[in-house]
Amino acid sequence: MELSIETILMQLFVLILLAKVAGLLCERIKISPVIGEILAGIIVANTFLFTSLGLDTDLSFFEILAELGVIFLLFAVGLETPFSELRKVGRTATLVAVLGVVFPLVAGIALMLGLGHGMTEALFIGAALVATSVGITARVIKDMDLTNAIESRVIIGAAVIDDVLGMIVLAIVVGVASGSGTSILDIALVSLEGVLFVVMVIFVGSILIPRARKRLAARKGESAEARDGCAVERKRRGITPLPLAIIVCLGLSFFASYVGLAAIIGAFLAGMAFAEFKDKWPCEEDFHPINEFLVPFFFLHVGMSVDLASFGDVIVLAVIVTLLAIVTKFLGCGLGARSLGGRSATVIGVGMVPRGEVGIIIASIGLSMAVISDSMFSVIVFMSMATTIVAPPLLTWAFKRKNNLACAVPEAGE
Amino acid sequence: MELSIETILMQLFVLILLAKVAGLLCERIKISPVIGEILAGIIVANTFLFTSLGLDTDLSFFEILAELGVIFLLFAVGLETPFSELRKVGRTATLVAVLGVVFPLVAGIALMLGLGHGMTEALFIGAALVATSVGITARVIKDMDLTNAIESRVIIGAAVIDDVLGMIVLAIVVGVASGSGTSILDIALVSLEGVLFVVMVIFVGSILIPRARKRLAARKGESAEARDGCAVERKRRGITPLPLAIIVCLGLSFFASYVGLAAIIGAFLAGMAFAEFKDKWPCEEDFHPINEFLVPFFFLHVGMSVDLASFGDVIVLAVIVTLLAIVTKFLGCGLGARSLGGRSATVIGVGMVPRGEVGIIIASIGLSMAVISDSMFSVIVFMSMATTIVAPPLLTWAFKRKNNLACAVPEAGE
Repeated sequence: MELSIETILMQLFVLILLAKVAGLLCERIKISPVIGEILAGIIVANTFLFTSLGLDTDLSFFEILAELGVIFLLFAVGLETPFSELRKVGRTATLVAVLGVVFPLVAGIALMLGLGHGMTEALFIGAALVATSVGITARVIKDMDLTNAIESRVIIGAAVIDDVLGMIVLAIVVGVASGSGTSILDIALVSLEGVLFVVMVIFVGSILIPRARKRLAARKGESAEARDGCAVERKRRGITPLPLAIIVCLGLSFFASYVGLAAIIGAFLAGMAFAEFKDKWPCEEDFHPINEFLVPFFFLHVGMSVDLASFGDVIVLAVIVTLLAIVTKFLGCGLGARSLGGRSATVIGVGMVPRGEVGIIIASIGLSMAVISDSMFSVIVFMSMATTIVAPPLLTWAFKRKNNLACAVPEAGE
Repeated sequence: MELSIETILMQLFVLILLAKVAGLLCERIKISPVIGEILAGIIVANTFLFTSLGLDTDLSFFEILAELGVIFLLFAVGLETPFSELRKVGRTATLVAVLGVVFPLVAGIALMLGLGHGMTEALFIGAALVATSVGITARVIKDMDLTNAIESRVIIGAAVIDDVLGMIVLAIVVGVASGSGTSILDIALVSLEGVLFVVMVIFVGSILIPRARKRLAARKGESAEARDGCAVERKRRGITPLPLAIIVCLGLSFFASYVGLAAIIGAFLAGMAFAEFKDKWPCEEDFHPINEFLVPFFFLHVGMSVDLASFGDVIVLAVIVTLLAIVTKFLGCGLGARSLGGRSATVIGVGMVPRGEVGIIIASIGLSMAVISDSMFSVIVFMSMATTIVAPPLLTWAFKRKNNLACAVPEAGE
């Protein structure tokens, strides 16, 4: 690292200022602030700011901050995906999630192979089309005061399964990309390894440990009061859950990366495990400020990785991929929800469209592994941003259409 | 940076794990966890861990995290030092603070010059002896349920002034160390510059802006309800005070470092300015988790900078400096509080003894500017740790002595 602390302070100051201002402007026009942060990154990379901030000299500190940001972000996503919730998700939501994963994955791989790309790149693009970012949808639902609508509950339930499936797909894809062999057997083996990792960590962290804890608590039932007293005492002595969460998150991220998977898979699974202990070790609120500081660096970095110069050549492909992403998710999820009737299925299909950060994260892993090209990275970023911008107005429309009908002719045709 | 993200995740995981475990162990035996974190750093630097973690290859990422940690730490200290409180501090507390700064500063400089060290190093050592870290004392006071005792209030009030005086001394010292000339005129000029910077930022950030804001609020009194509605609306849109605080903190830190002062001075003043807006932009609770993540890296780094090999040569000096630090602070503050009677003055003198992090921070700035030697850095770290460990039992004793007397023979001899 050749940069002085003074230069780094200047970089951090200017970058976070730009990211937050761009994020605020986007919020004003009701677009996700993530879009603004990515745009700020694109602006920095393609103007005088890049050299005058000294980012051309050394990006490494900034890159590691970005990586830490995405690791903590995925931990926070995991925190909202407790395993115990997975079992409560109904059949419809499960079907919505599975079809909503299979359709885009297969279509993405087929498109890339058809265009003559290699299998590894095709797998990454397919994987990047998979994961729904339900945050955008959840916000629209909340704004419209429809949290208790059946469609809303199916969407949120499906998103939980979708997250886990997305991580398994990512585990497989990273395994294949870093595996030496290319025979079907090799691919099957590394895929199995990735799936095993995810399933094992979930089994130990989200099932075994919480159960053991409950059994322990039941056995020691008589000394419950003493235990509670001890918990209070602990709190007073300043042992907060946050350090424990950070240690587990970093530890599992390192372990995932050590066994050849993406670090974020470890972070996500660590979050899932912690979600089971929300009653004892609540850490969601503590992670929020840390992420508010670190996560913008990830999206700035994404924006800075977008190659504007070569984007002209792939704009047509970007539009095609975006349409494919919208149509396959809409059809897959809509098909999964057809038992609820056509208009409800439309709402659910539209609600699952936004890809947001997860697709970008997967693409950025592919970029850093040098298995997808700069221009394909830009295509995925375009797709993620476009689906995120398009979804909220479409969802509002679909909900209104469904509800108006429900008011005018209750249950008609459904 | 030659390290992979995998290595960095491993470093962060192991380091934060060691720091937190050591911190917890210290808390168990009622010692400040900061001591544990420094000890963890000493252990890492002097065992196989250093090379097996890859810290010998590249420390730069870790060093910058440490620097960010100390910047955010000083912002948090500033947050507890609102300028409006300064004016409420009584004459006694002011006298306690001023004498408690002058005594150790003069004695430290005199000792170093007497031992044949250069003026710059002597200034840094003197400055490192100045600042009281009132956190330790505040905790003892709270544990003994004596927050409302007159001595407690004088100590907390004096600590506020002590912090500001400490920053001014630091500004002068850094100015002198980085100034080109060594004539009295040069020293006077850079000192003036440092003082001007601190005074100006306090004037603008903590007096001018808050006043303008109040005047504005008064003028728009009639539209108060509309404004409140707007504030709620803002909150709903997710504009939290944290990003603003981070931006101002990084901006002022950069600016301070740009004009040749220590970055932490800017961070501290930014915190002071934000303290005036606690009602509108509360950000203390949000900074807490960020600091819980970043600050341990600073103290780990301090521990790793302690040169155990050469410490044997300076152990005698370390003990002398520690005794000097205790005696001068005790006498200075006690003298300032003599109007409250001997036993109260004892409590206040002992309560101001712990130096904690601020002395270490000043020494680490001297180390990074290469104006103090490795062994003098170790001496200061020893002094900070020793005063921090010694103070709580002494303070407990002094309080008990004073209160027993107060119960037995009320007001006797005071």
